[in-house]
Amino acid sequence: MTELPLSQDQIEELNAAQADALDDDYASLGRQLARRGIAIKAIRDGVAGFSVAIPSWGAGRGGTRFAKFPIAGEPTNIHEKLADCAVVNQLSRATPRVSPHFPWDKVSDYAALREEAESLGLGFDAVNSNTFQDQPGQPHSYAAGSLTANDVAVRQQAIDHNIECIEIGRQLGARDLTVWIGDGTNFPGQQDLTRSFDRYLDSASQIYRALPDDWRMLIEHKLFEPAFYSTVISDWGSSILAAQELGPKAKCLVDLGHHAPNVNIEQIVARLHRFGKLGGFHFNDSKYGDDDLDSGSINPHQLFLVFNELIEAERNNPGDFAPAYMIDQSHNVTDPIESMIASAESIVAAYAKALLVDRAALHLAQERNDTMMAFQTLRQAYRTDVTPILAKARAEAGGAIDAIAAYRASGWRDRKAQERTKVGLGAGIV
Amino acid sequence: MTELPLSQDQIEELNAAQADALDDDYASLGRQLARRGIAIKAIRDGVAGFSVAIPSWGAGRGGTRFAKFPIAGEPTNIHEKLADCAVVNQLSRATPRVSPHFPWDKVSDYAALREEAESLGLGFDAVNSNTFQDQPGQPHSYAAGSLTANDVAVRQQAIDHNIECIEIGRQLGARDLTVWIGDGTNFPGQQDLTRSFDRYLDSASQIYRALPDDWRMLIEHKLFEPAFYSTVISDWGSSILAAQELGPKAKCLVDLGHHAPNVNIEQIVARLHRFGKLGGFHFNDSKYGDDDLDSGSINPHQLFLVFNELIEAERNNPGDFAPAYMIDQSHNVTDPIESMIASAESIVAAYAKALLVDRAALHLAQERNDTMMAFQTLRQAYRTDVTPILAKARAEAGGAIDAIAAYRASGWRDRKAQERTKVGLGAGIV
Amino acid sequence: MTELPLSQDQIEELNAAQADALDDDYASLGRQLARRGIAIKAIRDGVAGFSVAIPSWGAGRGGTRFAKFPIAGEPTNIHEKLADCAVVNQLSRATPRVSPHFPWDKVSDYAALREEAESLGLGFDAVNSNTFQDQPGQPHSYAAGSLTANDVAVRQQAIDHNIECIEIGRQLGARDLTVWIGDGTNFPGQQDLTRSFDRYLDSASQIYRALPDDWRMLIEHKLFEPAFYSTVISDWGSSILAAQELGPKAKCLVDLGHHAPNVNIEQIVARLHRFGKLGGFHFNDSKYGDDDLDSGSINPHQLFLVFNELIEAERNNPGDFAPAYMIDQSHNVTDPIESMIASAESIVAAYAKALLVDRAALHLAQERNDTMMAFQTLRQAYRTDVTPILAKARAEAGGAIDAIAAYRASGWRDRKAQERTKVGLGAGIV
Amino acid sequence: MTELPLSQDQIEELNAAQADALDDDYASLGRQLARRGIAIKAIRDGVAGFSVAIPSWGAGRGGTRFAKFPIAGEPTNIHEKLADCAVVNQLSRATPRVSPHFPWDKVSDYAALREEAESLGLGFDAVNSNTFQDQPGQPHSYAAGSLTANDVAVRQQAIDHNIECIEIGRQLGARDLTVWIGDGTNFPGQQDLTRSFDRYLDSASQIYRALPDDWRMLIEHKLFEPAFYSTVISDWGSSILAAQELGPKAKCLVDLGHHAPNVNIEQIVARLHRFGKLGGFHFNDSKYGDDDLDSGSINPHQLFLVFNELIEAERNNPGDFAPAYMIDQSHNVTDPIESMIASAESIVAAYAKALLVDRAALHLAQERNDTMMAFQTLRQAYRTDVTPILAKARAEAGGAIDAIAAYRASGWRDRKAQERTKVGLGAGIV
Repeated sequence: MTELPLSQDQIEELNAAQADALDDDYASLGRQLARRGIAIKAIRDGVAGFSVAIPSWGAGRGGTRFAKFPIAGEPTNIHEKLADCAVVNQLSRATPRVSPHFPWDKVSDYAALREEAESLGLGFDAVNSNTFQDQPGQPHSYAAGSLTANDVAVRQQAIDHNIECIEIGRQLGARDLTVWIGDGTNFPGQQDLTRSFDRYLDSASQIYRALPDDWRMLIEHKLFEPAFYSTVISDWGSSILAAQELGPKAKCLVDLGHHAPNVNIEQIVARLHRFGKLGGFHFNDSKYGDDDLDSGSINPHQLFLVFNELIEAERNNPGDFAPAYMIDQSHNVTDPIESMIASAESIVAAYAKALLVDRAALHLAQERNDTMMAFQTLRQAYRTDVTPILAKARAEAGGAIDAIAAYRASGWRDRKAQERTKVGLGAGIV
Repeated sequence: MTELPLSQDQIEELNAAQADALDDDYASLGRQLARRGIAIKAIRDGVAGFSVAIPSWGAGRGGTRFAKFPIAGEPTNIHEKLADCAVVNQLSRATPRVSPHFPWDKVSDYAALREEAESLGLGFDAVNSNTFQDQPGQPHSYAAGSLTANDVAVRQQAIDHNIECIEIGRQLGARDLTVWIGDGTNFPGQQDLTRSFDRYLDSASQIYRALPDDWRMLIEHKLFEPAFYSTVISDWGSSILAAQELGPKAKCLVDLGHHAPNVNIEQIVARLHRFGKLGGFHFNDSKYGDDDLDSGSINPHQLFLVFNELIEAERNNPGDFAPAYMIDQSHNVTDPIESMIASAESIVAAYAKALLVDRAALHLAQERNDTMMAFQTLRQAYRTDVTPILAKARAEAGGAIDAIAAYRASGWRDRKAQERTKVGLGAGIV
Repeated sequence: MTELPLSQDQIEELNAAQADALDDDYASLGRQLARRGIAIKAIRDGVAGFSVAIPSWGAGRGGTRFAKFPIAGEPTNIHEKLADCAVVNQLSRATPRVSPHFPWDKVSDYAALREEAESLGLGFDAVNSNTFQDQPGQPHSYAAGSLTANDVAVRQQAIDHNIECIEIGRQLGARDLTVWIGDGTNFPGQQDLTRSFDRYLDSASQIYRALPDDWRMLIEHKLFEPAFYSTVISDWGSSILAAQELGPKAKCLVDLGHHAPNVNIEQIVARLHRFGKLGGFHFNDSKYGDDDLDSGSINPHQLFLVFNELIEAERNNPGDFAPAYMIDQSHNVTDPIESMIASAESIVAAYAKALLVDRAALHLAQERNDTMMAFQTLRQAYRTDVTPILAKARAEAGGAIDAIAAYRASGWRDRKAQERTKVGLGAGIV
Repeated sequence: MTELPLSQDQIEELNAAQADALDDDYASLGRQLARRGIAIKAIRDGVAGFSVAIPSWGAGRGGTRFAKFPIAGEPTNIHEKLADCAVVNQLSRATPRVSPHFPWDKVSDYAALREEAESLGLGFDAVNSNTFQDQPGQPHSYAAGSLTANDVAVRQQAIDHNIECIEIGRQLGARDLTVWIGDGTNFPGQQDLTRSFDRYLDSASQIYRALPDDWRMLIEHKLFEPAFYSTVISDWGSSILAAQELGPKAKCLVDLGHHAPNVNIEQIVARLHRFGKLGGFHFNDSKYGDDDLDSGSINPHQLFLVFNELIEAERNNPGDFAPAYMIDQSHNVTDPIESMIASAESIVAAYAKALLVDRAALHLAQERNDTMMAFQTLRQAYRTDVTPILAKARAEAGGAIDAIAAYRASGWRDRKAQERTKVGLGAGIV
């Protein structure tokens, strides 16, 4: 039986106070969209059917190499993280799955963990392996690489860990393994750029072979950090070539912050889908590097353009289209629950706006080389305020019209600050 | 007597067909804003009082070093350019001033030109000098620099040209001189980086001395292009130090596309204002370099954040706040009139959204370190669809509710294609 | 019979004056290299066997969209360009092939042109097609794209032009067709990002089918310019996927200035070779975008690291290794002949330094995770001054020890300034 | 009495084995330079007089937010760090000063610490304050900023800490205070961009007032990290304006990795000197962001161009020229002692090459607009292998000809691995 963490009565009460205003906004928007030939109900249904996973580690406060500033009441284990994720989902009704990370989320009984999640209204999404850190007691160090290390014993340890993650994931009901490695170099010459890639392919193929038939292996590329001269899987080119070598279950995962400056990410999305390799997303935003900021906080238009490609992709080739959507952010200066609520809303808003695009008009303008009309067709959708649609869909599903206000009203964090173990200072790694 | 280029009756007719829909949207938004404590009329008044200048050269089709693809009916002299600018202003009612460029817009009688503009409902904005190209018959070449050239005769020619621009500007009713130079180097060692800056100061101070008391000299920096190793006035740091050396009439002009990748332009705006040196803007958008794309087409959120700083700046120090706003774009793939209409609308929309920010709530959240609320305060304003406000303000002033549709309905370009001289192919400079 | 443009006697005379100094430097370096286990003669032989093609258009002064500043005596047709290229090769003895560009280099009799080149000691390298500009009298415009245009007639024209280039190339003795298109968009929505790529593949496959069996089609990617929102073949990922679709004769060409900021180009080189698709290079240097500066002038270390990968690639898989090397620069502020001489020297120097790398030591250090020694092995090679080796190889082949000094001594440009048609001002395309 | 950590006899012995080879190389280079009109002895004297400080924290292994991989024998307190720094200086004879960081290097008796350093042949350089991390027991958190925080108590704590650093520095014989703050925002709206800068000026002026007359306050700017939307002191413009406000003892410090992509750092150096505000350097190298890689490992040519500006600056205005040179790197994958030795050598090499520039020829070429000769004058200096000069200067001062080989031969790290406390795993802050 599901037992959600917050008082559903309080949520309903708060919603009731806002219902009239929302009804007015929703009806007004409905009339406007009807004039544009769009049934608001269809968009609302689309929104109601959309969801994005949240990462277990996202429930804790993040930091940089310089410092981490903990907040009172932040979670210190997977059970507390699940509770916080359940708060996010209860209010937003858009984040019903949690993506776990191992060994961070290790427990002794995964069947029990799955039940615990289910009782909170949550399921499990892609499992994330970790071979970019050493764990206490670990026989071999990843100091000189993991899946691409020169030392075969190191590679085997990293392979085994990934296979263990698959096994845990099966117990949790997951069907994707996300593989991100930090392997790379800080100096020209440190590694042979080709041999390290070949070692990657060799290691990855062993993980691939352990993958159940209905699973996917999601390969995540990243331009830099923690490696600062070269990274083995640095860009979508390396990622897709690796995925092609590995086989049909291998797909590419796009993290919005893992690209070179100025790159057109929405075109990368289109290319990956064109070649049948679009596997999933790590949503976040960034201004400089892998800043892991809240989705849509810096460049909401880019997020819209990404979803515009996703809608095109789905319509052009629906059979092959099932990307895993996940938030991957580092909440350094906010309450992580608030950031996940707000980020989920930004992502759903981008999706809703992409649904609003008049595709017939867009395609016609494209065919006629009518650049201004093609652009204005996108722009008309982008500038529409879809807040009422999202709020309606949320409230109808039991969530809060104003989710952050409802969270604040609940007193959740203060209560947890009393109950939970204190987190120590993060001294930074300079 | 003003004689606008398009049929005002046709505009009114088109507006009439859209009036009911607009009234509904406007009233709905009014109710929503009222619930947020904002009087829609105040925003509409703000919008009605806002304008942005357009560049005479923006009326022609632009290009790249690889090619220019002309369109039929594009203007080939300042008179035709003024006519096109008048079309933009008649429809948008937001672009009542034209920024001329010399020697491109040279005529024999500037008093007559000013009258011609006035009869089209236009005035003149900042005068732009050109010392980045050689003109036929010009005694000295700018091949090795202009205001910073080693050769004193070259520098004098460039100084004289700027002083001549001031003189022309006086006749046209302008009060700003915008100085952008392409001076810089393509090779390490080509010039001494300090001595070339000193020569700039020396030349600029001679121009400054010729400036009437109520004029400003707007210094425009640019990171690169046409110089590809170093540029003398490359960034806002060089620009503000030069402006400080020159005196109070020297100010800095920000072109949104003239910065290094990732740079926070809105903070630069805040800094320039903090030190009393914010002189003006060249609006455009860009993804890679000085792409000169339509304002707001790539990153409308950034444009909003810039205007958010401008509103803060104005409120913090209104006496000193009078930036010159201008569009500066290269319309390579669209009809320039359509791009200027759409760009002006994007700019006005960003301004309107910045007016919507609940500044009391913002400042309170900032003081309380309530990061999420501070951000949400901006975001609430940004996501509001201000289209009805802009359309109302436009229609009320005599412009078109749907300005691009009205332009297309007017048949202006086709008519001009019959009347105007054909433009030759731009072969490109590779 | 070969008749080189400059007086060989004068070159020999100048060399004679420098011979003793060179002998001392060469002998000293030989002793140092011998202590490092390297035979200087082997490096010199490697250098003597290395060459790089120069572009016919590189013989003229380049420019930007803002201006072009011509120099007296620059060439205005393919015959004069060949003469200038012959000067470069006579002095550098490293640039025996010229890469032509059509329609710029069109003549009525290609057999005669080939003979003319041969008489100057030159052959022809990769043929470059041009579908990024409209030519006078051309039936269809490339304003809305070429190989990827919506209009089938435009695509056919672009395909036909490429096939014509192959035919011309056969007559000139070339065996590579380099295809660079400027196709892309300036606005989100302007084109469907996938459909335009599909049209590219369709068009390119028709060109591919016209390719003789011993030819290669070199696909050149570029991040931006002339398109500023998206480019169809924007990065190596799009390039290699296209090359894979087209077939074994399709390869990827790397222009050093066509990448996003910060990208690790040497790793891209390694990846392309790993997948059998490294086809060639356009050498130049850049600091900001596609600056087309002289090779090695901004980042000579990067050029060395690229050649380090090339040597690794050649040794790992010699059968498949035959990249086409070409200079592709825009000489905006120098005498193009001097820039081509200096650039060729920079490229040969990078190659020579890469030959100096102690690969056994490098691989051993890599295997041992001895990062510092691996790096120092590269660094020892890089910091070696290979000037004496290059000068010896050059002089031995008939070139000049100090090629730029010899060029200046020859008076070539002044003579041509008397003989050749004057070039008009390039007014710029703003 | 000085007691250096390594056996001086062993160093001499190793040098003896390499002396003949070095003599040959040195003599050969001497003849070559003589032919270029340069006395090698003068360069060697310049090199002998040059030094760069090393950071105490640089002696430990660095890391990223993802992980830190410690090495056996790394130092865990200031005493061990000083010993390691003494090793670097004994071998390189170029790093006689250590830059301390507080509170990391806190001890109870600074007079004793100074003596301890002196006995190791070391002095103290600029003192670094730390207000980017919270320390155990600290009354106020820097979670929402330090010198720019809203809360006056937080600001006062940060001010007091800086004043305490000055006091400690006096006892240690330092005369510079380096102030780097991580203050900034992750969200638009989080702080008012102007008010936070004003708070910075207010706080900094209080520190400035506590500065002894013969001290300097070095203001360090940084584009991003740990703040990812805006940083209060983000660029040289903000830095120099702050320094101007504060007064003549306030200067700007340039960290080579703290700039936006593509920016011309050597020009920034020239500008800061031009306005009397060049205070010092943090040397390192980077490819992507603040990568803190070994100096000269990625772009040695840029390092040379920076020193070229420094030599120009010194010659143009010697009275005002005394920048503090310091290495600031994060040694994540190497033995920090080896990285500091190699980095010091790269820096000295860049300095030596800048000394080799024929400045009369350079200036003449610049005046004549002879771009190619100006560039070639720099390039001739850059490509010269100055290794023999550095080795001679080092050996003459008691250092090692091959410093890394001598370090390895000494067995220092293995010995320390036996003696020193083990460092725990750095778990990373994600």
